[in-house]
Amino acid sequence: MTAQPTGPRRGRGRPPRAAASAETPATRDRILAAAREVFAERGYEKASVRGIAKAADVDPALVHHYFGTKEQVFESAVEGAFAPVLRTRPLTELRPDRAGEQFVRMFLGIWENPATRAPLLAIIRSAVSNEAAAAIFRRLVAGLVLSKVAKELDAPDAELRAELAAAQVVGVVMLRYVIKVEPIASADPEELIARLGPVLQHHLTGSTGAGPAAG
Amino acid sequence: MTAQPTGPRRGRGRPPRAAASAETPATRDRILAAAREVFAERGYEKASVRGIAKAADVDPALVHHYFGTKEQVFESAVEGAFAPVLRTRPLTELRPDRAGEQFVRMFLGIWENPATRAPLLAIIRSAVSNEAAAAIFRRLVAGLVLSKVAKELDAPDAELRAELAAAQVVGVVMLRYVIKVEPIASADPEELIARLGPVLQHHLTGSTGAGPAAG
Repeated sequence: MTAQPTGPRRGRGRPPRAAASAETPATRDRILAAAREVFAERGYEKASVRGIAKAADVDPALVHHYFGTKEQVFESAVEGAFAPVLRTRPLTELRPDRAGEQFVRMFLGIWENPATRAPLLAIIRSAVSNEAAAAIFRRLVAGLVLSKVAKELDAPDAELRAELAAAQVVGVVMLRYVIKVEPIASADPEELIARLGPVLQHHLTGSTGAGPAAG
Repeated sequence: MTAQPTGPRRGRGRPPRAAASAETPATRDRILAAAREVFAERGYEKASVRGIAKAADVDPALVHHYFGTKEQVFESAVEGAFAPVLRTRPLTELRPDRAGEQFVRMFLGIWENPATRAPLLAIIRSAVSNEAAAAIFRRLVAGLVLSKVAKELDAPDAELRAELAAAQVVGVVMLRYVIKVEPIASADPEELIARLGPVLQHHLTGSTGAGPAAG
């Protein structure tokens, strides 16, 4: 991702790029986009603040100024990748009786869209192979997404329910988008939503132990 | 893992280690164990036949002799890691009416055991971050495990059913053993089996579309 022009082209009076782009929200976003690309390409361990700065065409000091350490850049990149998830209606208007379908539709929607899939894939790759990255992922996923779902459920085991539901979707993501096993990799999203909705509904609100309730 | 002594200690007439260990089944196993360690530590891309040979204390030519290329060493390591899965009774004696519980009990058993968890974790890490490793993983998982389950189901959508069931378990593995999100990371395995068994049973043999059948 590169920065988009945000206004009319300026003429020869335009200042050089580095000076023009420093210290603006667009620069911050450009650094984050570059960070996601660098983490995706090199993995968390091999990625460096210097490499991210180079990819974003800014001075490394500016990366430190905005975000701090590599760990903090990663954390901001993860938060940025989850921002579209947190803004989706299912999470802001969760209906307990339809939560399963809402949940799976929201997640598949994010993964079907290449623009949101790429940063999430980058983050999962880093979190799987590096413990420091996993810790950040863990804190943010648990803190931002799962606790929000659990809060809506109003059950003593709400967190475990939310995680079992999330596990079903995480596994589908792994087999469909990461490992790409057939036939699940090419299955129609609506077919998957029809099959997974009732399962997630069971995890979130069904009776435990005895078996899934009839839908 | 290191090679275990297999007989009484020999005295001073014992030949030097490299000569003694070459060209035996124990050497082959030692190379595979070393390969899994190297793939786990360095990831697929950075691992090399030379590094694997060094970790196994053999000549690189011997690694090539037994397995061929790095890709083929990886394939053999994956096959070796799945061998305990394929020997478990649930896969050899799958009972359709209890397949869900058998399936989840088998997989959690393998993941709860550190000896079988370590090589699988190594393989998943490599498959998530490298496309060549993912292709090998894909071929073996689909060919060895999922097709075996699907064959027992005798349904037109058996492969998709097996993959959706596998996805539930893969997601639990990711959240519990890889990312280690609480409370699922510390949940009692029997609690997870009780909750997941009916869900997997639904994926494998339940009605589709309308919702999970009562257990």
